[in-house]
Amino acid sequence: MINAAVDELLKNPVSFLDDSGPDDDIAISSRIRLARNLKDHPFPVAANNEELNNICETITFAAGNTDALGGENMLLFAPENMSELDREILLERRLASREFINTPEARRLFVCPDEGCSLMVNEEDQLRIQTIRPGFQLRKVWQDINYIDDELSKNLDYAFDDQLGYLTCCPTNVGTGMRASVMLHLPGLVLAGQIGATIQGIGKLHLAVRGIFGEGTANSGNLFQISNQNTLGESESKIIEELDSVIRQLILQEKHARRTLLENDRFSVLDHVGRSYGLLRHSYKLTFEEALHSLSGLRIGVDMGLFNTIDIHKVNELFIDIGPAHLRKNAAGSENNDDLDVFRAAVCREKLRQLS
Amino acid sequence: MINAAVDELLKNPVSFLDDSGPDDDIAISSRIRLARNLKDHPFPVAANNEELNNICETITFAAGNTDALGGENMLLFAPENMSELDREILLERRLASREFINTPEARRLFVCPDEGCSLMVNEEDQLRIQTIRPGFQLRKVWQDINYIDDELSKNLDYAFDDQLGYLTCCPTNVGTGMRASVMLHLPGLVLAGQIGATIQGIGKLHLAVRGIFGEGTANSGNLFQISNQNTLGESESKIIEELDSVIRQLILQEKHARRTLLENDRFSVLDHVGRSYGLLRHSYKLTFEEALHSLSGLRIGVDMGLFNTIDIHKVNELFIDIGPAHLRKNAAGSENNDDLDVFRAAVCREKLRQLS
Repeated sequence: MINAAVDELLKNPVSFLDDSGPDDDIAISSRIRLARNLKDHPFPVAANNEELNNICETITFAAGNTDALGGENMLLFAPENMSELDREILLERRLASREFINTPEARRLFVCPDEGCSLMVNEEDQLRIQTIRPGFQLRKVWQDINYIDDELSKNLDYAFDDQLGYLTCCPTNVGTGMRASVMLHLPGLVLAGQIGATIQGIGKLHLAVRGIFGEGTANSGNLFQISNQNTLGESESKIIEELDSVIRQLILQEKHARRTLLENDRFSVLDHVGRSYGLLRHSYKLTFEEALHSLSGLRIGVDMGLFNTIDIHKVNELFIDIGPAHLRKNAAGSENNDDLDVFRAAVCREKLRQLS
Repeated sequence: MINAAVDELLKNPVSFLDDSGPDDDIAISSRIRLARNLKDHPFPVAANNEELNNICETITFAAGNTDALGGENMLLFAPENMSELDREILLERRLASREFINTPEARRLFVCPDEGCSLMVNEEDQLRIQTIRPGFQLRKVWQDINYIDDELSKNLDYAFDDQLGYLTCCPTNVGTGMRASVMLHLPGLVLAGQIGATIQGIGKLHLAVRGIFGEGTANSGNLFQISNQNTLGESESKIIEELDSVIRQLILQEKHARRTLLENDRFSVLDHVGRSYGLLRHSYKLTFEEALHSLSGLRIGVDMGLFNTIDIHKVNELFIDIGPAHLRKNAAGSENNDDLDVFRAAVCREKLRQLS
């Protein structure tokens, strides 16, 4: 276990964006999180500082007693000792939630070296376990998290009810305590004007649709996160199976939309891709939204084989690097650090220059 | 004298865009036209076909009897024998007016080889002489046209009144029959939000402001044509002197606006230039307006020394080549000729690729 600073994380790109997973032309990443609490310990919202620290210690002991999270290479973050900027970095890398970083006292975050799994301690629940992988592979992600959950439970006595299942702070998580999600890149359905109907249809299946940065950000960069809403009365494998089959359908729909666009309106697609590249490669002021939109445009070009000269793995790093906190962190010492849009454009220009 | 087809013109770029004139970073071109009519011949609007043909013959004889218009290399166009598309080419190259090409019967156009001077026969007036040069050099253009006018008058008996001056079809041209204009590129004043006040001020001086393609097109590509409105009661040299001094002021204002922008908001200027380049270099569908706007953005970059690698002379050709008629003419036989926006983008991409 390493008492880490975020600089440790910044050395390497996040692994879930490395486009090495199944269906990675459409599915960016698959993620599962489990909510867990300990018997005889209050939920964090009702706990005093001493109780919160007890929970931290108990879970730290359990995390340190398994190799499932990277063993001696596991990174430990104590948000109360971190700057606000560094905590925002955790958020942008999807290792911690907004709620977690906003009230940092007596909380802990454990991260395995490749950032593929992490534990938040004393968020809404005492323990939130997360695993994430590139592409569309929910079952593999379920195996990952199941293993970690089993390992931790050897040293943790979870609050569990035979009738209800796992007990959680918020009733919407009681039961499995599980939320599984897949991040999809759906520019074809957006360009074809079909995304509205698609999202409506997903809603009827009791699944939630969110944007890349949680609720209220749907559609940024044509990225959509589809997740289960039910946790009660169904088994984990049933939930994953249902989500899996909906995602499979969406991927087919997106593929069809892309094919149709290319057949019917090839130049509009090319234009979308070309303008996206032009903006990333040549602008000197880029808002976050514009950058996401352009990265999406570039991705569809690469994914549809229209832009073979670009290594998309490297471009994906930009999805993280253009975030405000990552920019502020990396701009320190730069002459342009007073204007994030200017620095964001410089980061994108330089990256695409290297790749061209 | 050569009975020419427009293909003859398309072999070379128009000379007034070659950026070799004074103040060519702001003044694109200087132009003067004179309206003339012959004694004892009716104005074209009141003439029958025989009379129109008589006028054509008389002026053709005069044009052929001087070397002022290129002598044996002078190009002669009979618009009634040309396709509508070819006539539009004359309009886009600013050799003929909309009115002239729309009613082509019994009209003639004479053009000297470098397109720097031309004669329209039987437009609104029987004779419209035009000379044009790159940059800001009204006095030189006045010398050019004065010489041609003198030469032609050796064989033409102009309708002239000792009190009024030259008689013209429309009362607004009576007197000198002269309209002098300078085409200015004023992106600095536009970006600084000062162009509205500037245009208002110019109006108070009895000068007219138009866009690159005549009335109603002001602001396309940040190009503004400033011309005199008065023709009666003032000498040609007085009119030119007044226009000259206003243009001189405008050029100073534009230079000041550009300098201020660069000092106060360097990255916004760079961004404007970069995005313009990116669009021209990478898009696959470009409207005429977008292309003009982007060419303007690229020019300001070159003119302000932000983009030294581009040969602006070559870029200027695009101002003509992206016109709908030039595109349709050049797209003949191309696979993309069904969509002008697609072909326009291809023309711009290829030109900038060559120059990069």
